[in-house]
Amino acid sequence: MTGIDSFLNSRLDQYVNEISRLCAQPSVSARSEGTHECADLVAQVLGQHGFAVQKFETPGNPVLVAHADGESPRTLLCYNHYDVQPPEPLELWTTPPYQPTLRDGALYARGAKDDKGELVARLAAVDAVRSAHGGKLPCGITFVVEGEEEIGSPHIAAFVKQHLALLKCEGAIWEEGETDPDGRPQGILGARGILYVELEAQTLKMDAHSGDAHILPNAAWRLLRALTVLKDEAEHILIPGFYDNVKRPTDRDRALIAALPDREKYLREHFLTGDFVLGYSGKALELAVFEPTCNIAGISAGYQGAGSKTVIPAKATAKLDFRLVPDQDPQDILAKLRAHLRQTGFEDIKVTPIAGMMWPFKEEPDNPLVALCSRTAEEVYGKPSVMVPMVGGSSPIYAFARPLGNIPVIMPGLGYGENRTHSPNEHIRLGDLVNAARHIARIIDGYAELK
Amino acid sequence: MTGIDSFLNSRLDQYVNEISRLCAQPSVSARSEGTHECADLVAQVLGQHGFAVQKFETPGNPVLVAHADGESPRTLLCYNHYDVQPPEPLELWTTPPYQPTLRDGALYARGAKDDKGELVARLAAVDAVRSAHGGKLPCGITFVVEGEEEIGSPHIAAFVKQHLALLKCEGAIWEEGETDPDGRPQGILGARGILYVELEAQTLKMDAHSGDAHILPNAAWRLLRALTVLKDEAEHILIPGFYDNVKRPTDRDRALIAALPDREKYLREHFLTGDFVLGYSGKALELAVFEPTCNIAGISAGYQGAGSKTVIPAKATAKLDFRLVPDQDPQDILAKLRAHLRQTGFEDIKVTPIAGMMWPFKEEPDNPLVALCSRTAEEVYGKPSVMVPMVGGSSPIYAFARPLGNIPVIMPGLGYGENRTHSPNEHIRLGDLVNAARHIARIIDGYAELK
Repeated sequence: MTGIDSFLNSRLDQYVNEISRLCAQPSVSARSEGTHECADLVAQVLGQHGFAVQKFETPGNPVLVAHADGESPRTLLCYNHYDVQPPEPLELWTTPPYQPTLRDGALYARGAKDDKGELVARLAAVDAVRSAHGGKLPCGITFVVEGEEEIGSPHIAAFVKQHLALLKCEGAIWEEGETDPDGRPQGILGARGILYVELEAQTLKMDAHSGDAHILPNAAWRLLRALTVLKDEAEHILIPGFYDNVKRPTDRDRALIAALPDREKYLREHFLTGDFVLGYSGKALELAVFEPTCNIAGISAGYQGAGSKTVIPAKATAKLDFRLVPDQDPQDILAKLRAHLRQTGFEDIKVTPIAGMMWPFKEEPDNPLVALCSRTAEEVYGKPSVMVPMVGGSSPIYAFARPLGNIPVIMPGLGYGENRTHSPNEHIRLGDLVNAARHIARIIDGYAELK
Repeated sequence: MTGIDSFLNSRLDQYVNEISRLCAQPSVSARSEGTHECADLVAQVLGQHGFAVQKFETPGNPVLVAHADGESPRTLLCYNHYDVQPPEPLELWTTPPYQPTLRDGALYARGAKDDKGELVARLAAVDAVRSAHGGKLPCGITFVVEGEEEIGSPHIAAFVKQHLALLKCEGAIWEEGETDPDGRPQGILGARGILYVELEAQTLKMDAHSGDAHILPNAAWRLLRALTVLKDEAEHILIPGFYDNVKRPTDRDRALIAALPDREKYLREHFLTGDFVLGYSGKALELAVFEPTCNIAGISAGYQGAGSKTVIPAKATAKLDFRLVPDQDPQDILAKLRAHLRQTGFEDIKVTPIAGMMWPFKEEPDNPLVALCSRTAEEVYGKPSVMVPMVGGSSPIYAFARPLGNIPVIMPGLGYGENRTHSPNEHIRLGDLVNAARHIARIIDGYAELK
């Protein structure tokens, strides 16, 4: 393994340049900004690493599939995405989001972590394994790189179903992973689903002078009333049937959670200005990931500029995301949301799903790929893996794992929890980049021998 | 009077050009955009109409005072303002807000009505009266033109108190007026006060990934909970003591309201998509102006662009305006609002007054200037005036009327109710401009003889 490690250490500059090149190309799927250009750039980069690349058009952004054969008939699939979240608010970035900048041993750019850096870490691992094996790979590697992950991967599930033979594999590496605040690698076993909707209230044909606020109905007040029937102050979601299919955490989940390191101090220091939701603390913070959420991701109405304007807003909109736990179904939740608004007198509120739905995913921790991932992680990071039964975010894992034969899916990666993913000043630490590549190279190296 | 009328008809182009020149100069007080430049331009225009102009600096935008002596020692004061509301949303303007455009007998521009057109109508009236009197004015005229009306005139009250001798007068013409949908001139006898505040919730140091929405508090939800304690669904404002000083409408107010033309059809056609507030209809719509309001003029949090972004907003803000009726006091209401938020557990919500407060104003309909205004209005418009005991908007009338000796204040003007004041496509009809000037010229002409 020292060959792999010295290879990666000596090529760090090359991989930083490769990430910078990808991050300099905007690729905001939320508004189709630069995504096609970025797909072509990623295809080029994959080709430069010795992969045969196919580009598939979808109703949205293209999906890239890149394959390289190995000595063994076993194939490891790597899922990544080339799209990024919008970079706003721009004024909070120290350096511009699309001008990748090295500062204090870290690379800053939109997408540096999520997910362009992770993609390059995998490519570096492939290079290193090839170098250690005389230019050959011990197993086949297939990359699937899509361009709509940040808007809920609306087309990936159908794509997988249409290309089962092309994507045939016995295991997969997911888009990202991270070490915890103590530097311990995380083994993630589940992810929540998501339903993302926009709610719109319209009460007037056009904004009116607020001197008529005693008679002309205000869309902001109307939307606000509708939102209050969705969730009470105790965080209980009021949509009838919302909790019907919720599976409570098992004893094993609770045991894994009990062994998790404490995030409380970190979150308090970095995020909180007051208390956690419901006054949670300690392990209750981790266990709460088994609670589905109703989050206001954005709300907008009327005048929002500097100073004052005396208007009655004609329209008001809110973006909501519901994070769903096993076995909630986003289509079922959407139907229940609409029914609830009708039944509570808010039939005028327009509900529009504005990103792909995702189903929750959860797998058992006992399988050889998970064991390989943990073992090699300890070798690289010098600490045992922490097994996380469920993360708060969502991912289209379900769309691959099931149709491809209930394959195991692991999540090695270069995150460290303070990467500011989705926020201004997103970055990766160069040391994390090297370690992720070292870890993934070991997984590729051992994959062919797995039973 | 035919001399006055033919003078005005023959000079219409000149006055339209003058309004266009003023409107081409942005003057958005809400963000201090072009206000000083506009003050200088207005000073120049007043000078061109034979007034001696003084410019007074204030902590905000300058106040202009322009005087011309008359044959009689009596002086009529005209109050106007050169600032305008922000023009956004720009995409809803047919032609750009600062490119005044004539279309179908109307002039479109931000400020065409409110208040640059009204100002020029008064100047046209002065010109016409001078022309009919061999170049002389029968009474003194003093213009006070300020630049902060659209942000609540924070400095005008103090300015008036400091310049009582300079502003000495026996009556005043207010900034604007209008005819109703049947073409009847309105005589407005009162206006509501206003308290405009921004509420801010902050729950996090920075936006976070919505995958943590089960534990990290959401500023949008927090703000929304705070807003719901301010007003219930029956439009009752829940701040303790809010209604303490509210004077109910008198029998005389009710009688005047009973005689008002019906606005219901007009408002339904132009504004409503559903029902009026509380299901009001008919005369109840007019009587409701005696109810104070709590209006959300704007609300903003998190991601508001196209598509989706999965964030927990760290900050959320709402702009609120409270329209106040006699004898509510905005300073008292602000104190009660703050106390209420504290007492309901929302001590974390920051309350910032972001525009000048205004006190409500109401005067009795019996005085010679009101009678002159009504009599001359009927002469010009061919219809008797409609006396309106209270309008929904606010104005700094109180700041002039009381310190200047409880002077009567009248409101002739060029509005017609569909001017889209404060909205995109603000405009005036040229016929209204001529009629307003004809009416005001008659008031100036008769003013010296009043007892």
